[in-house]
Amino acid sequence: MKVGICGLGTVGGGTFNVLQRNAVEIARRAGRGIEVAQIAARHLNPACNLGDTPVTEDVFAVVNNPEIDIIVELIGGYGVAREVVLQAIANGKHVVTANKALIAVHGNEIFAAASAKGVMVAFEASVAGGIPIIKAVREGLAANQINWLAGIINGTGNFILTEMRDKGRTFDDVLAEAQALGYAEADPTFDVEGIDAAHKLTILASIAFGIPLQFDKAYTEGISKLTTADVAYAEAFGYRIKHLGVARRTSEGVELRVHPTLIPADRLIANVHGVMNAVMVHGDAVGSTLYYGAGAGAEPTASSVVADIIDVVRTLTTDPNNRVPHLAFQANALSDLPVLPVGQVETAYYLRIQAKDRPGVLAKVATILSERGINIESILQKEAEEQDGLVPIILMTHRVREQKMNDAIAALEALDDIAGPLMRIRVEQLN
Amino acid sequence: MKVGICGLGTVGGGTFNVLQRNAVEIARRAGRGIEVAQIAARHLNPACNLGDTPVTEDVFAVVNNPEIDIIVELIGGYGVAREVVLQAIANGKHVVTANKALIAVHGNEIFAAASAKGVMVAFEASVAGGIPIIKAVREGLAANQINWLAGIINGTGNFILTEMRDKGRTFDDVLAEAQALGYAEADPTFDVEGIDAAHKLTILASIAFGIPLQFDKAYTEGISKLTTADVAYAEAFGYRIKHLGVARRTSEGVELRVHPTLIPADRLIANVHGVMNAVMVHGDAVGSTLYYGAGAGAEPTASSVVADIIDVVRTLTTDPNNRVPHLAFQANALSDLPVLPVGQVETAYYLRIQAKDRPGVLAKVATILSERGINIESILQKEAEEQDGLVPIILMTHRVREQKMNDAIAALEALDDIAGPLMRIRVEQLN
Repeated sequence: MKVGICGLGTVGGGTFNVLQRNAVEIARRAGRGIEVAQIAARHLNPACNLGDTPVTEDVFAVVNNPEIDIIVELIGGYGVAREVVLQAIANGKHVVTANKALIAVHGNEIFAAASAKGVMVAFEASVAGGIPIIKAVREGLAANQINWLAGIINGTGNFILTEMRDKGRTFDDVLAEAQALGYAEADPTFDVEGIDAAHKLTILASIAFGIPLQFDKAYTEGISKLTTADVAYAEAFGYRIKHLGVARRTSEGVELRVHPTLIPADRLIANVHGVMNAVMVHGDAVGSTLYYGAGAGAEPTASSVVADIIDVVRTLTTDPNNRVPHLAFQANALSDLPVLPVGQVETAYYLRIQAKDRPGVLAKVATILSERGINIESILQKEAEEQDGLVPIILMTHRVREQKMNDAIAALEALDDIAGPLMRIRVEQLN
Repeated sequence: MKVGICGLGTVGGGTFNVLQRNAVEIARRAGRGIEVAQIAARHLNPACNLGDTPVTEDVFAVVNNPEIDIIVELIGGYGVAREVVLQAIANGKHVVTANKALIAVHGNEIFAAASAKGVMVAFEASVAGGIPIIKAVREGLAANQINWLAGIINGTGNFILTEMRDKGRTFDDVLAEAQALGYAEADPTFDVEGIDAAHKLTILASIAFGIPLQFDKAYTEGISKLTTADVAYAEAFGYRIKHLGVARRTSEGVELRVHPTLIPADRLIANVHGVMNAVMVHGDAVGSTLYYGAGAGAEPTASSVVADIIDVVRTLTTDPNNRVPHLAFQANALSDLPVLPVGQVETAYYLRIQAKDRPGVLAKVATILSERGINIESILQKEAEEQDGLVPIILMTHRVREQKMNDAIAALEALDDIAGPLMRIRVEQLN
């Protein structure tokens, strides 16, 4: 399958790089290779090694290229992007786009054109970057009447609110830093006044409730008036302030609104920090669900763009009954990568040792670990317990092969100074 | 499309009820109605009003019913369930199952039979109940090389660990309560020794890494030996203990292991409490993502079973280029439910009022709110601030229509006792 990429900025560059780097894995999943046949770009992207991929400055040369099956629109905005998408559809090409503004404002027109022409338009990357939230709502929760959804769907805004809360900084101070770091645009209006979030919320509400896209009816309120005093008072009441997009179905209609919101501090979504995004979706059968991940950035957004490309390729080229292989990869492309015996696994460890209350025990323990190359990260030694006179020693180690740890544990348990088997629990940082 | 349900226990009953209750919504999404043509059950389920749906005690009467297109296997276990699934495939019927043990142990055989016969086998409900995690990994993250995943994928175990931590209770004490509440089986081995989690992890690892199902190679360690002391010591180090399934790809092979694990307390997954499930998935392009929801129960599991049925129906009956409609619902089945003006929205409110330091201001504020039917939930009055002598009054209200609140705010701001505009932030409980 031949793909044309229109726009080689952050997301376009990420899309090209992911398609190149993961070409083998993607072909094992999709059942055939995906080739970037042509790129339209006004400037080259220093993050990309384009090799001999043809590049043009004329985006319509790509859109009208008869060899190309799928047009990937990563230009942004409503102007040229709309023309590109409509011309691609008119040419009978499938379209993948990450353009939330285009879909929220012109989606009804674009979808009607695509349906009339019998081509696909995919837009997973338009909402919440790398989180497959459109697929989750549109397919994964298709059994449900969706009651409401609420999301942190603008990373810049969440970064600002996180800093205001964690460090007591003012809105203006953090915004200036976000601009310096490249998280926020020179004109931050779209992000901090909620317009970007309203684009995404409009799309989510339509797929949740089955209503046409109605961006002009979304209520939008930004975060620029929030003070550090409000953040602190909210905390005193047990709440956090997040810039949420909320869509709710009532008997009278649909609420569609973006505004700063106090939410209880113990909710999972209240603990989504920095530039990360998360969307809660509540269905009548499933109850509350939550989807979390990077909402922006080159490769997280590319993850969704390329997933859409694979969806299109799977639909076009596979037996419909095996559109998605049972185990994600084509049955004849499974790997013989072995499952490792647990002795070969590497983790850090928590150890609790019940030591007899004698001098020198800790030194013996440390020596046994050290001789096997096991480094202690932290240690907690408690006073002797009243009932049995034993001293609990609790250790956290650095990462080590399980086999070495088993060997160390056997040596420790053989010590006369230690009572009974020790407790060993594995530790994962998950980062 | 005609569906036969085999097994009318918790999940079977939930599946029947969701298909009935949401029949209209589901038909708007799937493009045609889904009818339960026959049910096989040894006992009727008091939660279901079956109407005139035919019921038989002979499961093979359903499997061999020539009118049925899709067999939904909700019997559980490896015995009859395996025969049912293989016979359904041999009969050319598509299969939807929630049976993690069957897929983890006999999946390779079942998928080969299905591919040879050209039918679909869908099993979203086999892992993490209502969370669409298989779809997320298999399709949503298809662009990525998955590096690792880690999940809380057994609700019973997580309930026990949550109670041990929150209330300092022992494992045995909480297990007895979980059995009384029906969260845990009379024989809790599958749940607390990690076997159930290992079934689910085996499936997730295969779709993440593209390896055949190898349940027999999973390492499994339970939570029954954990003490309250370990839970407390972990906390002292800044960690929480969770029963995780971990699958990781290394250069040598795949780690596949279920065991108690210390994880940093500030990770989102460390804050997944009670019977809820969550899975973290880390891909090379997308980074870390997380999926959260109910991992068990009648309707959450039915949510995934019915989503799979809709997937099969969409594949069989729609134009492939419109397998999933752009806005989730068929274009001719969109709703004209209006988007409400924000004045009709109902939320609770946080108000911060800068009052002049005079007697009786609070009474005036309370009267204005009360006259408009706005109830105060809590209130915080600070001392006068040094620089301007103003007294901040912070209020949290119960839920009220925005129009009433706007009216109250206009009246409050008109008071001579109040300086400047007040700060109003909406409050959502998200429960």
